[in-house]
Parts: sequence; C-alpha cells; structure tokens
Amino acid sequence: MDPIRQNDFLLSRGFNRLIRMSLPKIDETHDPHLRTWVDGADGHTEFPLQNLPLGRMSLAGEETQACIAIGDFVVRLKNLLDCGLLSGDAEAAAIAACRPSGSAVVGLRPAHRVALRRAVSNLLRVDTAAGQRARQLSPQFLIEAAACDLHLPARIPNFTDFNAGIHHAANGGRRRGLKDPLLPNYRHLPIAYHSRASSVQLSGKPVFRPWGQWLPEGEEIPVFAPSRRLDFELELGIWVGRGNALGEPIDIANCADHIAGYCLINDWSARDIQSWESQRLGPFLGKSFCTTISPWIISPEALAPFRGPGFERGQDHPRALPYLEDPVDAREGMPQLQLSVLVSANPDSDPVLISRSHTRHLFWTPAQMLAHHASNGCNLQAGDLFGSGTITGDDPQSFGTFLDAPTPRFMCDGEQLILRAHAVREGYVSIGFGDCMARIEPAKGAK
Amino acid sequence: MDPIRQNDFLLSRGFNRLIRMSLPKIDETHDPHLRTWVDGADGHTEFPLQNLPLGRMSLAGEETQACIAIGDFVVRLKNLLDCGLLSGDAEAAAIAACRPSGSAVVGLRPAHRVALRRAVSNLLRVDTAAGQRARQLSPQFLIEAAACDLHLPARIPNFTDFNAGIHHAANGGRRRGLKDPLLPNYRHLPIAYHSRASSVQLSGKPVFRPWGQWLPEGEEIPVFAPSRRLDFELELGIWVGRGNALGEPIDIANCADHIAGYCLINDWSARDIQSWESQRLGPFLGKSFCTTISPWIISPEALAPFRGPGFERGQDHPRALPYLEDPVDAREGMPQLQLSVLVSANPDSDPVLISRSHTRHLFWTPAQMLAHHASNGCNLQAGDLFGSGTITGDDPQSFGTFLDAPTPRFMCDGEQLILRAHAVREGYVSIGFGDCMARIEPAKGAK
Repeated sequence: MDPIRQNDFLLSRGFNRLIRMSLPKIDETHDPHLRTWVDGADGHTEFPLQNLPLGRMSLAGEETQACIAIGDFVVRLKNLLDCGLLSGDAEAAAIAACRPSGSAVVGLRPAHRVALRRAVSNLLRVDTAAGQRARQLSPQFLIEAAACDLHLPARIPNFTDFNAGIHHAANGGRRRGLKDPLLPNYRHLPIAYHSRASSVQLSGKPVFRPWGQWLPEGEEIPVFAPSRRLDFELELGIWVGRGNALGEPIDIANCADHIAGYCLINDWSARDIQSWESQRLGPFLGKSFCTTISPWIISPEALAPFRGPGFERGQDHPRALPYLEDPVDAREGMPQLQLSVLVSANPDSDPVLISRSHTRHLFWTPAQMLAHHASNGCNLQAGDLFGSGTITGDDPQSFGTFLDAPTPRFMCDGEQLILRAHAVREGYVSIGFGDCMARIEPAKGAK
Repeated sequence: MDPIRQNDFLLSRGFNRLIRMSLPKIDETHDPHLRTWVDGADGHTEFPLQNLPLGRMSLAGEETQACIAIGDFVVRLKNLLDCGLLSGDAEAAAIAACRPSGSAVVGLRPAHRVALRRAVSNLLRVDTAAGQRARQLSPQFLIEAAACDLHLPARIPNFTDFNAGIHHAANGGRRRGLKDPLLPNYRHLPIAYHSRASSVQLSGKPVFRPWGQWLPEGEEIPVFAPSRRLDFELELGIWVGRGNALGEPIDIANCADHIAGYCLINDWSARDIQSWESQRLGPFLGKSFCTTISPWIISPEALAPFRGPGFERGQDHPRALPYLEDPVDAREGMPQLQLSVLVSANPDSDPVLISRSHTRHLFWTPAQMLAHHASNGCNLQAGDLFGSGTITGDDPQSFGTFLDAPTPRFMCDGEQLILRAHAVREGYVSIGFGDCMARIEPAKGAK
C-alpha cells in the first residue's frame, strides 16, 4: 500500500464528507394526476407536464431562444417573460436562460432551474388560477414544435466520451481474444477520451459517410476512400451545468450540483478508419466526422422518480477508490432508462425496432464520471458534454452498436437510425428524451 | 489496390491541383539591414523588426487587447488605430484583431495579416517618414512588455495533439520491446488524439502536480495520489486561422491559408496516471491537468526565410497518399526551428540547458496534419490549436521529454522548465518564439 493514504486526499482538501450528495426530491410536479390545458399533452407523449425539458428553438428569420417542451408544443421563455407570468427564482432562471451566452440554458443555478420547472408546471396546469391566466395568454408564448427549428441547447466547449458500458467493453476484449475481456484498469476508473466537440450535431442533421484512410483486409498499404464500416453507438449524454476552476477537483458528494441534465448521443463510428488510426493514441477521425445528440436537456428533477442504484459490483469487482464512492450515488445515482434503437431503410419506411438496452449496463454513474474527470484538477466548463460509452446489454437483443450485434453489419446509405430513451416507473407518468435521429448520406464526391 | 482510386477523391471534389500551395514570400520586411527607433530592439532580442508576432495583453484594470511584440516592448493595436497611423488592409486587420471575439487575433484574413505586419514594420523603422511620425506618437501605443500581463492570444475551441516526432514515437516502441519500433500506421498518417482545450495555460502560470489514479510498481490495486512521474513534452504548436465547414475537407494545397502561426507547447504529462488509464482509448487525465503555451503567434510571414523541407522519407518510408502530398509542402513546408529545453531548480537559480532539438525531426508537416485532420470532413475552427507531438532528436542530447533522455528522471516540485525556439539562417536576422515556461508547484493538499 502506498504511504499516501487515499482518503488523505479528501480530508486534506477540507472536504466535509458529512455533507452527502443530495438529489432532487419527488414533489407535486411528479404527481401522475396532473392535467394540462395544452392540446394533447396529457396523452401519449414523451413530454408530459412531468418532464418539461429545456432546449433552444427559432422561427424563420428570428433569433434562437430558450424554450421548454410540452407535448407537441414548445413554450418560448422570452415570450413567457414578456407576458409577466414568472416571478422570483423562476423569473431569474428564465432571464438567465435567455441570455445570448452559449451556456445560458445549461448554466442555470440548480435552485433556479428547479423553480422554473415548478413555475412552468403550475402555469400549464388546467386546475390552477395561474394556469387559467396562462392559457389565455398562450398564443403569445406557445407554439407548435413542428413549426420550429430546434438547435443545440448549448455551445459545447469540450466533449468527453467515456467507456462505461461494461458489456460493450467486454465484447471488445473478447473480439481481441483476451482471456479476461476487461482490461485491468476497467473496474478501477471510468475510462474515457477527449472527443471532438465541434462536430456534435443536433438530431435530424444528415450524416455524410466520411472519407478516410483505412487498411483493406489482407493489404499492407492503406487507401483513402469512403468508410465501409459505418456504425452507430447508443450512449447516454450528460450535460455539465456548473464547471470548476483549474486545479480544484469536485468531491463526488457535490457532483449532482454540476449536472444540468441528460440527452441521447449517437457517437457515429467509422470502424475501418478507427481501427487503422487508433494505435496507440485512441480514436480520432473515426469519430470526429459527426456525433448526433437529442435536442432536449432532460433535467435531474424530471428524472427524480426514475433513479436507481449504480452497477451491482458484487464479488467480481473491486470496490471503487474513495474519490469515486458515495453511498447516495451508489444507491440512486443512475437514471434508470429504457433505451431503444430503430432503423428505417429510407425516409418513407416505418422505423423497425432492432435493439433494446438499459442504463443499468453502465458500470460507472454520471457522478463518478464527473468526479473522475475533475480529479486531476481538469477544469470542466458549463456546456461540456459527456458520452457514457456504448450501452450494450447482456443479451443478444440489446446491442448498442452493430459491432456487438449477434450478426454484425454496418450502416447503408439512405438508412435512418433512431435512438430513444424512456423513464418508466409504476405510479408515475413516463417521460421520454425525444428522438436522436440521423440519416446516412452518401460520401460527398464519391461515384 | 482498392477499386476506388485515391486520386479520385481530389478530382471528384473539384479540387484544382494545378493551384499549388503558395507560401509567404521573402520581402523588404525580412531585410537584415532594417533598423528600428524602438530602444534596444535592434540588439539581441527574439522580437526584432523582422518578427512582429501578434498576442494579447492587458494593463491593470483595463480590458485585454491585441498587441504586437517588438524588442522589450509591445505595440497596442487599439491605441495605434487611435493614432490614425494605419490605413487600408492594415487598418482593417487591426480593427478585426481588436474585436472582442475570442478568435479575433488568430482569425485575420491572410492578406490582412500580411498588410498589418508590413505596415507596423514600416512604422517602427528609423529611416521612414512614417517611422518618424510614429516615434513621436509612440507614448500612446508603445509600452514596456514587463509592465503588461499577457494572455492566451485566442480562445481555443479544440486542442489536437499529434505524434509527428518520429524519434519519440520510435523510442516508445523500443521501450515496449517492438521489433519494428514504429507501428504499421505511423508512416501512413499523422497519428493524433483530441486533447483537452480548457486547461491550456499561458507561459508563466504555475503547474500544480496533479493527483490521480495510478498503479504502484508491483501492485495490483491502484492508488489515488499525487503523480510521481511528472514529465514535460517539447512540441511545436500550430494555430488554426480559418476553419472549414463540417463535411468540407481542405486540399493540402490550400492548407497554408488556414495556418495563422506557430507557438511552443509544453504538453505536461503525468506518466504514471497516463500509463494506467490509457488502455485502450489513449491519454486522458495524464494530460488534461495543464498544458503550457508560449504567448506569441509567430506568423508564417516572419518564418518565410526559415522554411525547409519536410522529413526526408528516403527508401525506408512509403510515399504519402495523395491527400497528404504536395510538392511545395514537401520542399518547404516545415518551419526550421532550433529548439532548446532549460531547467532551473528554483526561481532564483539560472536556467541550465539540458537538451537541444529541431523541427526537422517531425515526420509530418503542419500542412499534412491539417489536411489529415479535415480529411474526414471534421470542421476545424479559428483558434484550434495543434501540438506537433514530442520533438525528440536522433542523438542522446536532443530529448524532447524526460522519457527519451539517456537518464530518465521526472520533474521535482519547485523546478522551472523553459522551452525556446529560434529560427536562424545566414544572411537573415534570427527570430525567437518567446519563453514557454512554467514552475511545478506541489500537489494541492498533499503533506
């Protein structure tokens, strides 16, 4: 054992471990009996009154602005402010979210974000006085989602991709013929790499099959040609809300305060480019041509009823080092999400479900990823995006990438791939993330 | 050979390869006989009249602004504009450089940047009418560098670290006992990984020894403790000036237009953290705690007399694929720089030279790095920073990192490390990059 005892770090830095992680509580906004006056939003929707995620939208010729999804509509926050329907912390939150800064929507103080969601819930209810007043003014702030353009909810200063999907990691080891398919470091730290922030695109934008350098099978000289092994990766996205100063790590007990919310990520991967280039510094151009994310920031508050334990470590796995361990996080740090993958061969055909997975296959919680990322003093920034790593399950029908499928194949031109996530619990209204979707376009300039 | 012929890419995309790369020409601004009226700036300085690099500075209580280095002074561009001493493209350049945008200084159009350097050269000359007028007004725009705070010259949206130092790459293979120390992909593409942009710091800022998870020798359970193997890495930095749209690669013949200039990078590396974490996705927290860069953007124009050929490939190495090959780049695409590494044990002791190296040990030119990076359609952005990779030479006295030194060791607390770069050619006035310096502070909270 090293003479520097591991716990010394936390103690010597003045961390008060008596202050344990606190996660959002279930309150009246989660009541399954709530009804809204917004047309159709009480029915089958991913965005019921219990969700209310933040995003950014624009109408033709107008500037983008912060908004909240409800059913098939969006609430425009600037217009809502103009109606004088908000006050106190909720008003402060809406004002902050409407600032032109790229991090305005993700960077809200947690207390403000909570207040805004509660106030908007109240305004959209059919049974409140505030709701009646808002309904009368609704032409000024409510607009059909289909009439809007959605945008990335924040400028993304840095995009970090983890590898916390344990079955995906193990499948990789098995493909390489390893006896123990997980590398020695895997169970001790959330493996990750810096990925490319500039090419993160919103759901719906086309993905052009990338050109790149790769080694045809059996050859010794690489070619520069369009990728033939274009693959998807199903990942949970984590939006960093509040950052930290360089040199100041974040106690895992405080990590929940730094998470603004969640989204879905399709971390497109050109396997031929990736396998040729990634020795020994990891993935680069095999990933950086495009990453697709879902448009809405699903808040920790909306997910309060849907939290559950992190990965059951059991006897097979070592205990996490103290800087990665928190009892509250272990008990309820993982958003429990049902994930699905759908494909349609072309824009006119109905999507077909090809796989189902679940966030319980993530070996590390979002808080553990965040605590690890900042543990060396690295300064996280508002709007930083984490990918969880590919969430493949433990049966053949739950692959998070074609590489892990029982019959591997790759994306064809014209195919459209959709990722979906739903939080479901008996006694609560289910919420969804919204589609993370993109269609593959042929490589530019290829014959 | 793959049926898709490699050249097809360039032809089918409409690239006109008759337009070859054009690099800045040697002109009157490089005349070694030029003399300036600025005190001491004709003597032994890294910033003579022939250099004139851009940067960003501030005085106490004032906003940061764009500036140009001359001898021991800086020219403040906003104040120079206020004096009415600039016109035409030079004035347009100074106005653009003074915009509040984080990419203002790097994002100048090449023709504007050239005009500004030429105009400032003329204004600082002792033998021109413009110079006489400027000298009289100089109290308004010239200020001692020692009185200023320097800042990062641009916001860095993305930081990409290449591995183009061939001897460093080969040493790594030798340490791992490889028969051919270079991996099969090394000679075919500029290996790189996305690194952390947020923790890039200006020369002079302290570097705190990072905490992290690592595996003590002979142990099976990692510890979380301050790094004991803190190392430096000598790299050439490349500032991206103009970016490209997502999906639009950059022909290597046009790459010179996208490079705003050069700096020095010390890519600090915690070898114990790095070696434990980097299987299989590459470096992460072993690098992201801090990266130090030199303050000035040394322009392609200032380096015009100092260009030379890229790495001599000879018979040992395959020819680069067409998308990485340009005859002008091969002949003169590499800035020829003498590099040195100095250490002082504490702030009061004189720095001691410990190593000398040279950019001729880079296997790939800056244009090749840029063309490769954008070859999959990845969108580069103004202010993106590339690191060349560690520039170790081919003899024991030319290590670019302690790992490659004949007697490896690591950084001690309190030690200060300095990187320097000089361009030297007979018949021309030498120019320098300015120090890339930082001192190691003890790990925060460690006993």
